[in-house]
Amino acid sequence: MKIGLIGLGKMGFNLMQNLVRHNHQVAAYDVNPELVQQSAEHGAEGASSLEDMVAKLPAPRIVWMMVPAGAIVESVIESITPLLQAGDILIDGGNSHYKESITRAEKLAAQGIHYFDAGTSGGMEGAHNGGCFMIGGNPDVFPIIEPLFKDMAVENGYLYAGPNGSGHFLKMVHNGIEYGMMQSIAEGFEVLEKSSFNYNFEDVARVWSNGSVIRSWLMELTQNAFSKDPKLEGIKGVMKSSGEGKWTVETALDLQASAPVIAMSLFMRYRSMENDTFHGKVVAALRNEFGGHAVEKSE
Amino acid sequence: MKIGLIGLGKMGFNLMQNLVRHNHQVAAYDVNPELVQQSAEHGAEGASSLEDMVAKLPAPRIVWMMVPAGAIVESVIESITPLLQAGDILIDGGNSHYKESITRAEKLAAQGIHYFDAGTSGGMEGAHNGGCFMIGGNPDVFPIIEPLFKDMAVENGYLYAGPNGSGHFLKMVHNGIEYGMMQSIAEGFEVLEKSSFNYNFEDVARVWSNGSVIRSWLMELTQNAFSKDPKLEGIKGVMKSSGEGKWTVETALDLQASAPVIAMSLFMRYRSMENDTFHGKVVAALRNEFGGHAVEKSE
Amino acid sequence: MKIGLIGLGKMGFNLMQNLVRHNHQVAAYDVNPELVQQSAEHGAEGASSLEDMVAKLPAPRIVWMMVPAGAIVESVIESITPLLQAGDILIDGGNSHYKESITRAEKLAAQGIHYFDAGTSGGMEGAHNGGCFMIGGNPDVFPIIEPLFKDMAVENGYLYAGPNGSGHFLKMVHNGIEYGMMQSIAEGFEVLEKSSFNYNFEDVARVWSNGSVIRSWLMELTQNAFSKDPKLEGIKGVMKSSGEGKWTVETALDLQASAPVIAMSLFMRYRSMENDTFHGKVVAALRNEFGGHAVEKSE
Amino acid sequence: MKIGLIGLGKMGFNLMQNLVRHNHQVAAYDVNPELVQQSAEHGAEGASSLEDMVAKLPAPRIVWMMVPAGAIVESVIESITPLLQAGDILIDGGNSHYKESITRAEKLAAQGIHYFDAGTSGGMEGAHNGGCFMIGGNPDVFPIIEPLFKDMAVENGYLYAGPNGSGHFLKMVHNGIEYGMMQSIAEGFEVLEKSSFNYNFEDVARVWSNGSVIRSWLMELTQNAFSKDPKLEGIKGVMKSSGEGKWTVETALDLQASAPVIAMSLFMRYRSMENDTFHGKVVAALRNEFGGHAVEKSE
Repeated sequence: MKIGLIGLGKMGFNLMQNLVRHNHQVAAYDVNPELVQQSAEHGAEGASSLEDMVAKLPAPRIVWMMVPAGAIVESVIESITPLLQAGDILIDGGNSHYKESITRAEKLAAQGIHYFDAGTSGGMEGAHNGGCFMIGGNPDVFPIIEPLFKDMAVENGYLYAGPNGSGHFLKMVHNGIEYGMMQSIAEGFEVLEKSSFNYNFEDVARVWSNGSVIRSWLMELTQNAFSKDPKLEGIKGVMKSSGEGKWTVETALDLQASAPVIAMSLFMRYRSMENDTFHGKVVAALRNEFGGHAVEKSE
Repeated sequence: MKIGLIGLGKMGFNLMQNLVRHNHQVAAYDVNPELVQQSAEHGAEGASSLEDMVAKLPAPRIVWMMVPAGAIVESVIESITPLLQAGDILIDGGNSHYKESITRAEKLAAQGIHYFDAGTSGGMEGAHNGGCFMIGGNPDVFPIIEPLFKDMAVENGYLYAGPNGSGHFLKMVHNGIEYGMMQSIAEGFEVLEKSSFNYNFEDVARVWSNGSVIRSWLMELTQNAFSKDPKLEGIKGVMKSSGEGKWTVETALDLQASAPVIAMSLFMRYRSMENDTFHGKVVAALRNEFGGHAVEKSE
Repeated sequence: MKIGLIGLGKMGFNLMQNLVRHNHQVAAYDVNPELVQQSAEHGAEGASSLEDMVAKLPAPRIVWMMVPAGAIVESVIESITPLLQAGDILIDGGNSHYKESITRAEKLAAQGIHYFDAGTSGGMEGAHNGGCFMIGGNPDVFPIIEPLFKDMAVENGYLYAGPNGSGHFLKMVHNGIEYGMMQSIAEGFEVLEKSSFNYNFEDVARVWSNGSVIRSWLMELTQNAFSKDPKLEGIKGVMKSSGEGKWTVETALDLQASAPVIAMSLFMRYRSMENDTFHGKVVAALRNEFGGHAVEKSE
Repeated sequence: MKIGLIGLGKMGFNLMQNLVRHNHQVAAYDVNPELVQQSAEHGAEGASSLEDMVAKLPAPRIVWMMVPAGAIVESVIESITPLLQAGDILIDGGNSHYKESITRAEKLAAQGIHYFDAGTSGGMEGAHNGGCFMIGGNPDVFPIIEPLFKDMAVENGYLYAGPNGSGHFLKMVHNGIEYGMMQSIAEGFEVLEKSSFNYNFEDVARVWSNGSVIRSWLMELTQNAFSKDPKLEGIKGVMKSSGEGKWTVETALDLQASAPVIAMSLFMRYRSMENDTFHGKVVAALRNEFGGHAVEKSE
């Protein structure tokens, strides 16, 4: 098949190579012309503009967006919509909020454009070698794009999940689970690190990756990380987050679902962004007030 | 009444003044002779040694220990037991673990010595002006010492709680609640501090101390703290802990009671003791492994 | 002063009595004519409609809304706005979301109407005898209504907090703290209840209300509750919530503030609304899958 | 090799078959003679008593205990120690507390018996087909038993972890991580279940098991569980626990390590054991006290 691909960053570039390897033709565009050039060197057909990219596609056109969620997705859709026709298919492969995907799908449907929200998991490696896709959209149109997912995914690695929004909702919750799993693994290693046993963390992650109940890709990645830096001395424990974990907690709140572990995983990330906290100051001040307990002076 | 007092630190010295103000005679001892000297200047009868202190007391003797829990309490009991006689009363007013209090009471009971575990709350101010006491021990003996509690406590501020251990258990749980309340207040102010409103925190603590549902002594102390340092810029948010919160969580685990809030309050204290965390490093490394997300290098 | 009061429910009726007791004239309206009738019996001037109420007020009019947040507030504002004039003052004393209060204030300002968001705390008792008020709005207009707050509040129990939204924001965070404090107290009593000591909970709440570090109005209310039902056998542990706790957590998420204790307090409330949970089923099923651990069959 | 095996329950019986399949001779004993009989039918040499089992083993003897942690392990050790000689090897393959394993190893070392604590993971399937083993004990003696682990484990599925205690410590933390991972997965499905999308949970678990960041054995087991009961309608969400998660939290508390997610996973398990909670009653009573909010009456 022939597909337009917008966004050649970490994920998009790997997806492009994945598609090319499966003998799909990819008209590739990015705001950065260097990435377009590099994609051409890896078997894609470089496009100099959105117009150029669209012009290279046969109708009905299939366009995959792999750009940052939020304002960028919004802007790309605004730019490309006038270039598309009824019957064309636009796929958002990024981490958009599912509610925005529902709104966008409705808007585009009014113009006859089929919108799909396709949550993508598996990291850069998955994008390159075979990932996991959760897709929401029109079930009657899905068969047209299904071959792409069949090729890009590992076996059993894609799911038509339901109507628009269901794909990004699933990806959002996937990331919430991911936050919890990562924090679980990380707390375990913190307990090991503080223990009096002198564990080799790479060995531990390896044995836990083989045959244990907690074997998982994340544990294998933990092994990788320790193989490069046995005690992670080179990095800081600053845990950034890109939104999906927060959305999962907000959604849990809206649904009155108890999600304490996902929520705590997120709060520990926020905590890690600060060197000191105001809540800590309040508690320290209170201990001093009632018990005369010493406080540490700030420098 | 006449009472021996061992330990003239922040709490003990204030209790001594409280007792003296209520016309009790206090034979006061501390390993630090300066504190003994100062107590004499505040109306107590200074004792140069445990022996000296015991010698000053009429039988049956009443001795109050106000020393750090753990090894010090243990050592004081070992030293004083040979000096006491059957019928004497020994009171542990500190924050001993209730299980240790039960064990000690049993041992001393074998020698005819009556042991009471008296949890003390109210901070230094309470110790000085009228505090809160939760007492466990022999109900038949309690009336002998009740007048002391009646004098040292505010109205309705003492409770004979039950058999040995029940006093320190109650104090332990009290401190667990205290951890949760303090963290609750502190989180609230952290949200205010991060908000775009430019609140005067002292004013906020004052209005919340008057007429609100959350009015409490801790809120009044929050007001005090902000009155001295409006944004707590002078102190660090390092939240130390002295054990009772941990014991409450351990006890909740043993009783299979869900105590998520007290537990989280404690974990946030532990978190505040560290500049960086190993669990944070693991999560940061994992994000880098699967998604190529940048990590912050340690210096 | 003369003030219009809309809403004569639990809070509004008590506020009305509070105002009347302080010699204010209250034109009182509620959709329920019985409540209007009763308010008239308690010294208010009953109004048969919004129009009637507004007609009873001298310009510039001062109107206090004490109705449920959300759709009802919205609808009351829609109905009353055409009846008001530039220079009139409209106060929302309920628990509206601060963002809605900001929006409403802006809309009404365009018509010259001064809007104030006045968070009200202290429960029904506070509304009746003296409560706590956190007020956001125009600082130049506030002095006009300040005498009302001075009378309705306990001493130091009202605060002009800043621009519109700051009052309801403060009330929201107040309620978040309240959730945490209540859960802290409740967890403590759960530990007591599961312990082997046979505590009298009313006595415990009383002693903790007098002289302890955790003395607070909530602890006094705990004492009241146990005085009526010593082991709370008559009620279920279903912990409902009315939104402000959720908003506090959502705001903390937006501000990247760690608020684990407030969040856990909320999640435990959600958990209490369910007899069984889907997450519990998943964990139980997993334990069965890997370890053959028995599951409990549903009936 | 020839090995004695004590305990032919779910795990022990599978391990026996694993060993037999790898051409080891297993002298198998259980207090239940039926299990001994069955093990004989599966290629083991049935033993009628501990004495009989020990008599069947050549010196130095290797004995594997696969019995419930705590009193049973203690009692088996007491019974078998007099039957063993210096140079013999005793392995505890169960979930004993690491501190008990250290104590036992020291006691047995005094008699020349080599004790190993071997944490075993992988569930029944792992025990049967290849599991994961974390072993603590004397490094000079370990090579004698290493061939057994090499055969029983999947590739890279065993680790000599360090001195006595380090094996069971590692298994304990492994289980703590397991609690967190399971709760994370479960919370994710709870959010899905409460959402308006009508997901097929088996499909979701399948797609997440293939190519996603959260692919893991636990996710595959989740798929299995949903394949049998698509909405888990047949089971209750009662989440039992067998101790290692609690030990992990206790150890985290001792080490002052923040482990909020593992702790919350455990507390949610405890919560699930109760139909109603005392803390819920306290909060409900308090809401009624200050706000007049209705409570639900217990039946």
